[in-house]
Amino acid sequence: MKPSAATARAGANIALVKYWGKRDPVLNLPAAGSLSLTLDQLETTTTVVPDETLSADTLALNGQAADVSRVSAVLDRFRRQSGHAVFCRVESNNNFPTGAGLASSASAFAALVAAADSAFATRLDDRALSEQARLGSGSAARSIFGGFVEMAVGTRPDGSDAVARPLLSAEAWPLEVVVAVVDEASKAVSSTKGMNQTQATSPYYPAWLGQVPEDLQAARSAIAARDFEALARVGEGSALAMHASALAARPGLIYWRPATLALIDAVRDLQSAGVAAFFTIDAGPQVKVVCLPEAGQRVAAALSAIDGVQRLIHCRLGPGVRVLG
Amino acid sequence: MKPSAATARAGANIALVKYWGKRDPVLNLPAAGSLSLTLDQLETTTTVVPDETLSADTLALNGQAADVSRVSAVLDRFRRQSGHAVFCRVESNNNFPTGAGLASSASAFAALVAAADSAFATRLDDRALSEQARLGSGSAARSIFGGFVEMAVGTRPDGSDAVARPLLSAEAWPLEVVVAVVDEASKAVSSTKGMNQTQATSPYYPAWLGQVPEDLQAARSAIAARDFEALARVGEGSALAMHASALAARPGLIYWRPATLALIDAVRDLQSAGVAAFFTIDAGPQVKVVCLPEAGQRVAAALSAIDGVQRLIHCRLGPGVRVLG
Repeated sequence: MKPSAATARAGANIALVKYWGKRDPVLNLPAAGSLSLTLDQLETTTTVVPDETLSADTLALNGQAADVSRVSAVLDRFRRQSGHAVFCRVESNNNFPTGAGLASSASAFAALVAAADSAFATRLDDRALSEQARLGSGSAARSIFGGFVEMAVGTRPDGSDAVARPLLSAEAWPLEVVVAVVDEASKAVSSTKGMNQTQATSPYYPAWLGQVPEDLQAARSAIAARDFEALARVGEGSALAMHASALAARPGLIYWRPATLALIDAVRDLQSAGVAAFFTIDAGPQVKVVCLPEAGQRVAAALSAIDGVQRLIHCRLGPGVRVLG
Repeated sequence: MKPSAATARAGANIALVKYWGKRDPVLNLPAAGSLSLTLDQLETTTTVVPDETLSADTLALNGQAADVSRVSAVLDRFRRQSGHAVFCRVESNNNFPTGAGLASSASAFAALVAAADSAFATRLDDRALSEQARLGSGSAARSIFGGFVEMAVGTRPDGSDAVARPLLSAEAWPLEVVVAVVDEASKAVSSTKGMNQTQATSPYYPAWLGQVPEDLQAARSAIAARDFEALARVGEGSALAMHASALAARPGLIYWRPATLALIDAVRDLQSAGVAAFFTIDAGPQVKVVCLPEAGQRVAAALSAIDGVQRLIHCRLGPGVRVLG
């Protein structure tokens, strides 16, 4: 079958048990497992157009020509597997800011591998798609699936077991996530650089890795029991531990902005008032507040009142990646 | 000799290699060493008035009656040593906010032991005064001395070698410190509680302790060589590592306010512009910026422009404790 154009869409995900550190930079293998929620409102839509007139792949990211090298590395594997050595035009559009700690590479690489799989008719299963997505971006392996997702650390040297699996569907526990965007600019230090600097220089990095299995176990149990308070404890704990490991790098990595701290305070105030909400923060200044559906409006109202919050994106849990045609 | 009224004055100190964690809460023995600068502008003046008409010690802190128990425990040792079992009126006045991460207990207990030593004529040497001050408040052991001071972790079970010693006088390297006060209210979680919570629940606490000896060595070398950049590296590194260890406690301890982060940014901007300055932060939101004397005015001007800064206190390095009469 001749490769033909295909489009896929994937949601970003936010890790509750954070991914922070690689054990193999080439295969993009994580140094520990992680656990995430896939979101319905932060989405990337990617079209892969095989085109025999091209002499190289091209990438348009939100309408702008962009560095295609990581995309080409992904497409190369689909070309090899399908036996079709055709270059592609790739168009990728985010409906949210790129590179600002909103996990744009997660949704981007999940959408890319699903579109490429369809374009090259390689018919990979979800587990294999997750592996391909991981090779593009570690967190993308999780965005193949919807709802609650766990990424395995894996033990095989080739990385074939470092893949994600779904834990619970979005419908089974319909949490909401209010994303407070503090700064739409790209972050100063990318996740990969931040991880590497932490790994190389933070005295806390070994203890960070040592803590993850316990946090994963606590998060799995909380999800299985639909225990929001237990999920809140481990979610905030893992987020703060990740940022703390980076803060102790030398020089220290500070991803927070003043409004980030104001948002943490606001969440603690909501908690004191009995509102079921907790925060998590990735490698950037934005704060994501996870809450029970009945708390969503109250959380959004409280966060929108904070100085420095540029906008809120109110998400539900979303589905996994899907091919649109 | 009959005990008689005496007054002493001591400066606060700020640790560059932080003190965070105790190995013995009763003897107030530190779990690691620390290294500090004694300041000339944040001072406590304490008067001890032995008064045979009293049936208990009394304490007035900035003119307000205050809990006297920690002060009485200090006075008890002077009463025992001198053989005079007389209760005292103690008046202690800070010229700066109390309990807000400005090391008020350091200057307070240093001034108290010097005043008590004079009042009870116990004639302790500085090393013994440092030990007595430590029994009141760990960081107070350092405020006995001026300039650059190192606190030893000690090895003796009775704590007699957990005392401070002067490293370099204020005159020998006249650094300045601009204290940016962000919040004059008392901090939510005291240093002692924060240390205990970190020690009990932070997965990073062992690595924090493991890092201190290396940081002490780097700071000593930097001071001996008057190498400001090296001192800046270890000073910022130790401060961030301390806060990171607390952030990873469960629940996480966050001492910073939004303006704290804005001040860190401002210091990094100054550094990029070639200004010799670095920040340090204790268990509170205030930011202390250490600089070379020629940078003092520029640093103060930059910090005063930050939203949320309530006032600046511009310090030089100060002398050790002294008896005023």
